[in-house]
Amino acid sequence: MKRHFDEDLDGLAARLLHMGRLTEEMIQLAVRVVTERDALLVAEVKRREHEVNELHIEIDDRALKLIALHQPAAGDLRMIAAAIKINSDLERVGDQAVNIAETGEYLCKEPKMKLFDVPRMVEVAASMLKDSLEAFARKDTALAKDVIRRDDEEDRLKSQTFNELIHLMQSDASTIQRAMDVILISRNLERVADHATNIAEDVIFMVLGKDIRHRHVEA
Amino acid sequence: MKRHFDEDLDGLAARLLHMGRLTEEMIQLAVRVVTERDALLVAEVKRREHEVNELHIEIDDRALKLIALHQPAAGDLRMIAAAIKINSDLERVGDQAVNIAETGEYLCKEPKMKLFDVPRMVEVAASMLKDSLEAFARKDTALAKDVIRRDDEEDRLKSQTFNELIHLMQSDASTIQRAMDVILISRNLERVADHATNIAEDVIFMVLGKDIRHRHVEA
Repeated sequence: MKRHFDEDLDGLAARLLHMGRLTEEMIQLAVRVVTERDALLVAEVKRREHEVNELHIEIDDRALKLIALHQPAAGDLRMIAAAIKINSDLERVGDQAVNIAETGEYLCKEPKMKLFDVPRMVEVAASMLKDSLEAFARKDTALAKDVIRRDDEEDRLKSQTFNELIHLMQSDASTIQRAMDVILISRNLERVADHATNIAEDVIFMVLGKDIRHRHVEA
Repeated sequence: MKRHFDEDLDGLAARLLHMGRLTEEMIQLAVRVVTERDALLVAEVKRREHEVNELHIEIDDRALKLIALHQPAAGDLRMIAAAIKINSDLERVGDQAVNIAETGEYLCKEPKMKLFDVPRMVEVAASMLKDSLEAFARKDTALAKDVIRRDDEEDRLKSQTFNELIHLMQSDASTIQRAMDVILISRNLERVADHATNIAEDVIFMVLGKDIRHRHVEA
């Protein structure tokens, strides 16, 4: 019974990490729609979204069956609860990738647009997402705390990009529609970073049994 | 033991509904910052945010303790899992209210701005949130399905408002900054409607044990 439980728990983690990798790919593909002006990649993003949505249902189902069958105790139960929450966050990361791809598809048809700090925002958000999942896989609270700290950098880049784009719109009204689209993409990236932060907080709760949400993180 | 369990389960639902009412109030107060141009209400929103954040931690804690102590079976376990997810959605509704209040605070200092369909978006999002929680309290899947259907109306209003504001920006560059703020508020309201939709989907899963996420809802 115990061996079965450990196998099932490992299986749950493996599926979640697989879903995580798919959402990372979705973000990278969606961003390439914008940076490489390649609208054909939109279909690639949507194909993975379908797979992510199937995993979203499967993982919740696995998690509830694990609890019902094995009645796990404190640490294992926190791990399963973390998996349920991370599952929701990853599904929403997938939604953000689809939004970026769809906005990018529109931008491909328009004259080329300056992206300001958006490429840097992509790097920060993608590395936060990757490391939050790595922290989950390794139960690494130091890495999770590092992810949480990086969210401030993403917020700073978002505000800077926003101000520069507003300025561009004001100086050249012909850019308004496209500048607006870049602002929306920067908001999508900010939300990816927020989801990575949520995942990192769940990892800390899972490992320490201590809730650090709504508290300041110590260095 | 059984009686204790039922009491604890009722207690969990009661706290979640209390949190729901607080977030509804936060949305209404935040919107009044914008419509009544009353920046003093921002502090009222933030006071409730603090309370919502405390409840967020308390409810997760109650839910995990319930599972660990009572090892609930299928239906009860689905209810507790739904509570954990609804808890996350409500906390994020609170975040949206804070964002609306803060953008509203900035708008109060600027010349009065036309809000287009934003007041109608508030009505739709607020009624979706209220009814999704009512559906949870009454285990009412018909009401939950009705909430999910109303999300299309919110999306339509958001797109219409977006197009009108872009048009305004293009015809009068002096409105760009303020029009941008109204667009951001309309996005915040759309996200409140999305969270209400998530809650409604969780209610259907809780009652029927059937996952309708990523599926079309039948009439």
